[in-house]
Amino acid sequence: MTKWEIMSAWSATVLTLFPEMFPGPLGISLCGKALANGLWSLEIKDIRDHGLGKHRTVDDTPAGGGPGMVMRADVACAAIDAVERAARPLIYLSPRGAPLTQTRVKALSEGSGVILFCGRFEGLDQRAIDARGMEEISVGDFVLAGGEIAAMALMEAAVRLIPGVLGAADSPSEESFEGSLLEYPQFTRPQAFEDRPIPEVLNNGNHKEIAKWRRAEAEKLTALRRPDLWALFEKSKH
Amino acid sequence: MTKWEIMSAWSATVLTLFPEMFPGPLGISLCGKALANGLWSLEIKDIRDHGLGKHRTVDDTPAGGGPGMVMRADVACAAIDAVERAARPLIYLSPRGAPLTQTRVKALSEGSGVILFCGRFEGLDQRAIDARGMEEISVGDFVLAGGEIAAMALMEAAVRLIPGVLGAADSPSEESFEGSLLEYPQFTRPQAFEDRPIPEVLNNGNHKEIAKWRRAEAEKLTALRRPDLWALFEKSKH
Repeated sequence: MTKWEIMSAWSATVLTLFPEMFPGPLGISLCGKALANGLWSLEIKDIRDHGLGKHRTVDDTPAGGGPGMVMRADVACAAIDAVERAARPLIYLSPRGAPLTQTRVKALSEGSGVILFCGRFEGLDQRAIDARGMEEISVGDFVLAGGEIAAMALMEAAVRLIPGVLGAADSPSEESFEGSLLEYPQFTRPQAFEDRPIPEVLNNGNHKEIAKWRRAEAEKLTALRRPDLWALFEKSKH
Repeated sequence: MTKWEIMSAWSATVLTLFPEMFPGPLGISLCGKALANGLWSLEIKDIRDHGLGKHRTVDDTPAGGGPGMVMRADVACAAIDAVERAARPLIYLSPRGAPLTQTRVKALSEGSGVILFCGRFEGLDQRAIDARGMEEISVGDFVLAGGEIAAMALMEAAVRLIPGVLGAADSPSEESFEGSLLEYPQFTRPQAFEDRPIPEVLNNGNHKEIAKWRRAEAEKLTALRRPDLWALFEKSKH
């Protein structure tokens, strides 16, 4: 690297009503070390700073009726507009979003960072999503109390793929979702555990046979447990 | 409730190498209040307490070679066996697992609790999974650094469905995944935001028309964004 190149760390900004939740688990272990080493940065913004009136109100009842409260578009957009975008995607974490995939995680980790908006579970006024062109992402087909833990999952998944975060010995090249397959089963010492031996093929030192066995196991598990991924895999072979 | 009935709170036990990550976000907001009010309990167990030798070793290199480290079956099972099961499902959070759904979350919230085993991302020796009949669950098609944030997501999703956790005004009856549909868009005050009005139908007070519009919006979004859910929905109509 010449002195002309700027080393710019991957930067995440989180907009939340619960800033005290962060960094939370992201301040510990792999992501915590990477944060301390400057491999990524984390900025937390309290949406309530843009709330209205003496009570810093951020929500109101749903137009047309219904349970719960809805986050106001004007408050949400004021909070969003106060953040330096710097070419980063603006993501709204919501069960209505497109499911997060390892492919999207990889692309995000290769960019300059993310801006993550954590809504309340009843939802954000649709006009804020439309007016700011927010990308809606879901981490899974279940409903959380808010977007915060989803944001943590997305950040942890992306940060571990930033060059330098994982050691060379922990290459992510053979893990689940590579080539639409789940990962093969793992074994380690002891050789026998409760009368269950390690599969013989893994002990014979024949790397070609081991690779073949692992591939067959990965295909078997994927076909059994994830017909949806298996269909993608089958399609990719043609 | 008569005095003969025992009020037993939903109880979660988490097995992890990073006990300091908990309760983390679960100690705040909705889940934190419910925890303080005794609506659920959280027990954290350090897997390393069952590690081997002076260094409390918990992992070893993969049989057959490959990157990373694998968690030992003997250590994992010693940690598991030290936990009071009490009819709770034993769940291993892993990208190889069955995708978590709102249906499974609901069933878990109606049980007596969960035991969650958080692995390292390279995985747990398959013999531990088989020998203890662990249920493998994935929160999404991406890879985390460990199972901890996935465990938090599962617990938050389940805890909010425990009776008494959500207020009566926040009923989860109209949210995403009810009847295989994503939720309809939400709107609230102000009436006009950046020249975008609230859809007229939501202002007319005709509850039947509002319900019809919301249903149509939910169907439109699901068909567009989640053909997989849409297929389930179409099937359920016959």
